[in-house]
Amino acid sequence: MGRGDLVVAVCGATGAVGREMLKTLEQRDFPATTVRAFASARSAGTTVPFKDGELVVEELTEDSFKGIHLALFSAGGATSKKFAPHAAKAGCIVVDNSSAWRMDPEVPLVVPEVNPDDVAWHKNIIANPNCSTIQMVVVLKPLHDAAKIKRVIVSTYQAVSGTGQKAITELETQVRQLFNMQEPEAKVYPYQIAFNCLPQIDVFSEGDYTFEEIKMIKETAKIMGDESIKVTATTVRVPVFYGHSESVNIETEEKLTAAQARAILAQAPGITVYDNPSEKFYPMPLLAAGEDEVFVGRIREDQTIDNGLNLWIVADNIRKGAALNAVQIAELLLTRGMLG
Amino acid sequence: MGRGDLVVAVCGATGAVGREMLKTLEQRDFPATTVRAFASARSAGTTVPFKDGELVVEELTEDSFKGIHLALFSAGGATSKKFAPHAAKAGCIVVDNSSAWRMDPEVPLVVPEVNPDDVAWHKNIIANPNCSTIQMVVVLKPLHDAAKIKRVIVSTYQAVSGTGQKAITELETQVRQLFNMQEPEAKVYPYQIAFNCLPQIDVFSEGDYTFEEIKMIKETAKIMGDESIKVTATTVRVPVFYGHSESVNIETEEKLTAAQARAILAQAPGITVYDNPSEKFYPMPLLAAGEDEVFVGRIREDQTIDNGLNLWIVADNIRKGAALNAVQIAELLLTRGMLG
Repeated sequence: MGRGDLVVAVCGATGAVGREMLKTLEQRDFPATTVRAFASARSAGTTVPFKDGELVVEELTEDSFKGIHLALFSAGGATSKKFAPHAAKAGCIVVDNSSAWRMDPEVPLVVPEVNPDDVAWHKNIIANPNCSTIQMVVVLKPLHDAAKIKRVIVSTYQAVSGTGQKAITELETQVRQLFNMQEPEAKVYPYQIAFNCLPQIDVFSEGDYTFEEIKMIKETAKIMGDESIKVTATTVRVPVFYGHSESVNIETEEKLTAAQARAILAQAPGITVYDNPSEKFYPMPLLAAGEDEVFVGRIREDQTIDNGLNLWIVADNIRKGAALNAVQIAELLLTRGMLG
Repeated sequence: MGRGDLVVAVCGATGAVGREMLKTLEQRDFPATTVRAFASARSAGTTVPFKDGELVVEELTEDSFKGIHLALFSAGGATSKKFAPHAAKAGCIVVDNSSAWRMDPEVPLVVPEVNPDDVAWHKNIIANPNCSTIQMVVVLKPLHDAAKIKRVIVSTYQAVSGTGQKAITELETQVRQLFNMQEPEAKVYPYQIAFNCLPQIDVFSEGDYTFEEIKMIKETAKIMGDESIKVTATTVRVPVFYGHSESVNIETEEKLTAAQARAILAQAPGITVYDNPSEKFYPMPLLAAGEDEVFVGRIREDQTIDNGLNLWIVADNIRKGAALNAVQIAELLLTRGMLG
């Protein structure tokens, strides 16, 4: 590689997020001189679309990272755990979409609209937060800056694409089976997801919270850089293909009216306030799918406490919740002269 | 009508809830000597299934109630507003499933597991609460009795059957259209409900809350007979046919551990505690559909406050949320010698 080269790898390129990472690099004209696609041996030799052509998928190995400046990982926690240290050692900066490194005190957990300065202390691995957490903190941050958030109660309505391509296929297949009078098969999820709600995302852990719920609690504190923000969460899978929704109740130190919250959020980066009840304008997964912004609406004062607000937050979990946020981290590294 | 006669009318018999009312009367061997089916002129002359045969639907008029002891109404607010007073005047007791009479101080709002004694002061009209409220208060009541509930934050995941038969057909039709590469049509809801979430149920009102949200707030206080229980709600329609789900966060005066809450709820009427994470046992709409019980699970202590719990509550909105609760009210009237 020569001066001015910027070689970027997408690891896990055949998955739902990996494909979206490639698309996002293209859409945002990321100044890579070369983009390479990696996946497991099983997918090596297949192709993935990129720009006007295709990339041939290469097998990811410990030696893959020579000459690569930046690797965007979305290949699952085990793969990240195994390969990211090799990449880091080879001088490649990893932006990792799995949960493997997020809570590691040596690894920054970054949402560019919220804590861009945290990229400064990276040691070649930067973690991309959980999709549900990203869209929530983008909205919480400006409200926290204005009125100090004390407590957050969130219930999620999460799309199957958050689980990956197999889950997208499972929902589609189950619907076809049901509409053809066949017994629907559940392979990816423990129960039928078509026309159902599953109040389990990831496995169960302490206090009978799922890991998804614990991620929302712990990652929010780390990204916001404030352990005093208390979060409790109930995370639920719904039969939606793209776009996570969240019903969020917050309590703040200072009073914020709904109008003040709308005004603050309208000025904040990465957010579209979509909140006009009289016109039936409110965020929905179908509206957010394919979009970069985090949509917020249904902003209401909660009359049960002095300083409470209810919010409804929706974003494309594959874009802002994963691929876009990772590429934005890479752009931040470029802007700060930390890459290439 | 002679001594010992018990003539029961189902008004709105052709709708989703009306049909379920007939089914419920049959299933529970309600001791009616005669059951009659009423609907608007448009449906008069058609038939609805009942027991081994069919009932011919009669047109509902102001004079329909002569000789009828009990009328179960599920024909919409306007019909209830118009006809229930005529029924009451004719000496017929109305159990009304619409929102028309619920907040009337002269009308009891009853969930038999929660406030059975309120039937005592009826003046021939008794209101059946909103579906989302019924399943929530069945669970809140025993917890309130044990530890005094101060605050409730609820987010709902509501099935299309709550809107009626037309909405069931709309979800099914939209799915077929999408799977046949056609543009889905939204007629019942303002936007496509298939593979989407709509954070609007009923129309918008004060503070940008929807009527559905306001119903949950106001009806809970009336049924529980305690204005000190503060409720805030975000109500959302999801692409599910049958079964409403609710993510409920409560704050209590006294501490309740998750284990204590489970034990209390396991003893309470009308509830099935279905809460074993290690076996992936938790309530889901598909599990609750067709069942009489209110299912509760995902019971967890909320670590953000001293006395907080998270709960996940699911019930069949057409049965416990509507038809069954109405029939249970009728049974209560019978037991108390107030009917027939």
